Order: sequence, then C-alpha cells, then structure tokens
Amino acid sequence: MSDSSWIAVDAMGGDEGLSVMLAGVARARRRFEGMKFLLVGDEAAIRDGLKNHPNLSSNAEIVHAPDIVGSSETAGRALRRAKTTSMGIAIDCVKQGRAGAAVSSGNTGALMAMAKLALRTMPGIDRPALAALLPSLGANDAVMLDLGANTECDARNLMQFAVMGAAYARTMLDLESPRVALLNIGSEDQKGTEEIRDAAQGLRAATHLPLRFTGFIEGNQLSRGDVDVIVCDGFSGNIALKTAEGTARFVADLLKRAFTSSVRSKIGFLISRPATELLRDHLDPNNHNGAVFLGLNGLVVKSHGGANELGVATAIGAAAKMVQADLARRIATDLGNFEKQTS
Amino acid sequence: MSDSSWIAVDAMGGDEGLSVMLAGVARARRRFEGMKFLLVGDEAAIRDGLKNHPNLSSNAEIVHAPDIVGSSETAGRALRRAKTTSMGIAIDCVKQGRAGAAVSSGNTGALMAMAKLALRTMPGIDRPALAALLPSLGANDAVMLDLGANTECDARNLMQFAVMGAAYARTMLDLESPRVALLNIGSEDQKGTEEIRDAAQGLRAATHLPLRFTGFIEGNQLSRGDVDVIVCDGFSGNIALKTAEGTARFVADLLKRAFTSSVRSKIGFLISRPATELLRDHLDPNNHNGAVFLGLNGLVVKSHGGANELGVATAIGAAAKMVQADLARRIATDLGNFEKQTS
Repeated sequence: MSDSSWIAVDAMGGDEGLSVMLAGVARARRRFEGMKFLLVGDEAAIRDGLKNHPNLSSNAEIVHAPDIVGSSETAGRALRRAKTTSMGIAIDCVKQGRAGAAVSSGNTGALMAMAKLALRTMPGIDRPALAALLPSLGANDAVMLDLGANTECDARNLMQFAVMGAAYARTMLDLESPRVALLNIGSEDQKGTEEIRDAAQGLRAATHLPLRFTGFIEGNQLSRGDVDVIVCDGFSGNIALKTAEGTARFVADLLKRAFTSSVRSKIGFLISRPATELLRDHLDPNNHNGAVFLGLNGLVVKSHGGANELGVATAIGAAAKMVQADLARRIATDLGNFEKQTS
Repeated sequence: MSDSSWIAVDAMGGDEGLSVMLAGVARARRRFEGMKFLLVGDEAAIRDGLKNHPNLSSNAEIVHAPDIVGSSETAGRALRRAKTTSMGIAIDCVKQGRAGAAVSSGNTGALMAMAKLALRTMPGIDRPALAALLPSLGANDAVMLDLGANTECDARNLMQFAVMGAAYARTMLDLESPRVALLNIGSEDQKGTEEIRDAAQGLRAATHLPLRFTGFIEGNQLSRGDVDVIVCDGFSGNIALKTAEGTARFVADLLKRAFTSSVRSKIGFLISRPATELLRDHLDPNNHNGAVFLGLNGLVVKSHGGANELGVATAIGAAAKMVQADLARRIATDLGNFEKQTS
C-alpha cells in the first residue's frame, strides 16, 4: 500500500515553472508538519532551486526525470513519454507505493490519460471524474464534478459521480450525509436531457446510499450553500466553473473601475480596504486550488496551471488531507456498495 | 404586414403581477415617444390599473383575455388554451399584424410553444433560439444564444444560431461584421463535442457570411468583450447565463458582508457609495432584461418572470428597437443566404 506521509510533486509542470512549484512545496511544508516530498523533475535544476528552501532539506527527495510534458501536448503523445517525463514519473511514484498522492500543475488532458493508464479506473468506472471545491455562502464549500474529464455522460456515469462526490464530501468536508443535486436547466421533473432525468430517477430510488439526493439545481444556485455535491457532465461542469471564475473576475474588475472613478470613491476604498481584502482572499482561486481525479486506484491532484506559490501549497494541502483520509479506499467501498445495490 | 408602432404586452404574466407590468409599460412610454400598446388581459383589472398611469390614456388599448397561463403550467396545456389566455392572445396580435412584437413575463416553455405554433419557424429552422444580451467589459454587450429553448443541438442548429445571432448584433448593437465564437471547454480544435467541432468547421468554411468567426471561447471569457456573439446549445447556454447571474449575486452578497463587517468598513462604503451604485446599476439584471426568440416569423420578447418595473420597461424598449430595425426580416434574409450557400 501507499506510504501516506509522502507526496510526489511534478516539479516541472505549470505555467509558472519550477521556482513557484518549489516555493509552494516549501509553504505547504511550513503549514503541515510531518509531510515529505518526492520532487520529480530535472535533478540539477531542483537541487539548485532547493538552495532557497532550507526547510525542505531533510524532508524532500529528488526523483530525476529527464523530460517534461508540454502545456499543449496531446494526451497520446504524452502517454508515449510516461516513463521519462516528470508528470509520468510522479504518477508512477503513486503506482509503486512510494507516495500517497501525486500533484501536478501540468496539462490536464495528459495528466488524466497518464493517471488512468498507470493507476487504472475502479470497477464499473469508464473514465475518472475531475472534482473540485466551489466557494459558497453556506457553512462549507460545495464539491462539483465532473469538471471536464467526461464531455458526454450517461445516467449511470452521473450516478457514479454522485456516489464519488458524496464520498469526497464526507471525507474532506466532514459531512455525514451530504446533500447531492444534479445540475439542470430547471427544477421541474421533465426538464433537461434524458440522461439527467434517468439519473435523477435512479438516485431517488437508491435510498441506501450515504447521501441525500435533493433533485435538480440551476446555475444561479451553485454558490447558495443549499447543497454539498453538484453533479454534472464534464462539458456543463467546465462551462459552469469557468463562467463562475470569469464572472467573479468581471465583477472585481468593475469594482476596481468604480473605486478608482473619483477621489471620493478612492478614499472610501482605502478606508474599507481591510474588509475588501478579506473578500479578495475568499474569492482568490489560489485558496481553492486542487482538483482531484476520482474513480482511480490512487490519488492524482491537478493544480491550476497558473497557480502561484499559495495555490500550489493549497493543492498539496488538499492532496495531504485526501491521503490521510484514505479517500481512494472510501470511494472504492462506496462504489462497490452502489454497484451491488443497483446491478 | 405588422404595424411597427404597436407593442402587444401580456399584462397578466410574471411573478410580480399586473401592477408591475403596467408600471413598466408606463415607464417605457415615458422613455420612448410614439410607442403604442395593446394591453392584453383581464379588461376590468387593466382598466382599474390604468387609473394610476394617465400617460397611457391616449396610447394604450385593452385587449380582453379571460384566462392566464400558470407559471408552472406545461407547454402542452398552455397550447390548448392559446385562444383564451393573455399570453396566447398577445402572440396572436403579432400574427394578425395588429402589433410588431409581443412581450411577456410569463412561463418560458409555454411562451416558446405558443409563439412557435402561432408564428411558425423560418424555413430550415426546427425550433426558435432564445437570445439575450450579456454585460461585458467591452464597448458593447455580447449576444448569447441559445439560452434554453433547444436542449440538444446539432452542428447545423449551431451554425443557424451563429447567423441569427450575428443579424441580431448587426441590428441591435450596430456592428457591421460581428465577431462570433462557439462556447466550448477549451480553445484547441479537438476540444468539445462532435457537434461543436463540426459547427466550427462549417463556420470557418462559410466565408461569405456577414460575420467574423473567431473560434472557441471558454466560460471564463464570456464577459471580456472579445466577441460580440456567443453561440451554444440551450443546455450549456442556460447553465452559463444562470451561473453568471448567480456568481454576480454571490460576489455582491460577499461584498455586502465585507462592508458591514466593521464600523470602519461601513464608513468607507458610505463614502464610496456613488461609485458602487453605478456598479450595481451596471449589474442589475433589470437593465439587461428582454430575451428574444429568433427564427420565428414575428417578434416575441421574453421578460424575466421576476422583473421589476424597470426590467419590464427595458424589455419593452428592446422589443421596440427590434420592431423599428425590422429584425425578423433581416434574420430571414441572412438565413436565406446561409441556406443557399451551404446547401
């Protein structure tokens, strides 16, 4: 089995390069005691970069990888170079049991393809689903999946996402019986595609699952805090997540324009600054970084390509929490029960 | 042909009732000189309500309708009552040429079904597409369609939406050659569903259309002002639009919390207030109200069910602009050229 105290980090992935990845690791190490890291990438460059982070000297090992997966490389090409790239070798560390999870800021498509080939999907799962946390007005964030791994989904896929998302919410958000909803374009029974209506019927019937199915949720309710798990196909999920990100930035840009439009508003802004900075923190995607592929026999966490040091540390922290909670095993158990109940 | 100075208003539809509809009509009348209204609904109630709006006395006529379409009524049931309901009769005023456009705040599904049956779709169009304007950081708003009328779309549907959306942008936003993009989950050619990839190929090939196809756009770019027309299937479009609305409200709620979190921040807020009120205006959905069904032989405008007086006036203003610009005819011309070029 995997050694839960080690996290394999693809040190070369991401738009911001090695120095941000190492700074993120060092920051995570300061926040979480007892964590150890396999830093996968160019040995000489990593050794050089570590000079700036003495706090990693006793708890990080370098795993040399001669190659890098490009940011726009196709999954097919990346797969053929799994044995020489930092991304491929980081995932292999999980497969070999050297690490409890792998974290990469690299190309999502390549990461999914490599993780799937190396770790294999759980019984009954065709493709892993990408899950992330969404900020909300409620007591806890909401889990949302799938966020782009599965462009088209049938009813059974959606039901499996519900089971996996609920296991994630129970483990990571400490909820006993998470409220689960399907993303749809209306709340009435007859709304949406056949796949969604069938999934709703199936979830309503599967009363023995450790979740509460609450029906359909619309795009304007995602952040209200009314549900804990939002289930959708990867196309809609990707559109919704990115639209939410874009709209939050749009409103922030308009706010900046408004506050700098006159001397009076500038003064008001300066006075309110401590409050608006709290808000900025709350909305900063770096504070919510770390999506995970669910349905694999092992944990692979996707950090945003543009994540900064804080974002990388957040993703690593999420990975550590998943490892400690043994998330992959809990999902396997729940999926097994689901397959038994519905087959 | 239709008399362009008259607008038929379903006075009974919407969550806010007759008084808000009439106040909206009166407000629109003050803003747009020369507009005349057919107020469709319960004659006695409308006559009573008009006492509060003397400015409508000389330019509004009442068209009696004994019945109302319920807010959660199925389209099938509503269709059977087209001849007695305020919604059905308002649409019939367009069909009979008594009005240039109909405006309703009622049930969207019923409105689409009734409009389609009474006005019929243009040649080559299976179902009308719902289009609306999205606020952006650019010089103009962006047109987005479909927003929920067509849950599933093939490549040809998406290409027709592009042609109709471009005609809308040319007419309503005064753009000569609008920039058109397809909503997708990535910008690379191989991303998304087969339907989207085929539509992109078709739009790239159709170089004689009065539009500039710019490729794919992701959810986080909707408000950047980089494109004028955003084309998508009704499911994704509904999810994206509602997610944008919900996120804007979410950020506003967080901002309110931040500003009221301390005496200091409250003072700062009061000082900045004129600036933040401009922002609130800019984001108020009532200032962007008025979606339109494109691809019908006549204009039917959907006002948001929860629109206030300002929102109803905005939707009526949009309808008036569409009538004056002869939008339906311009779309018919462009669609005809498109069918000739691609068949």
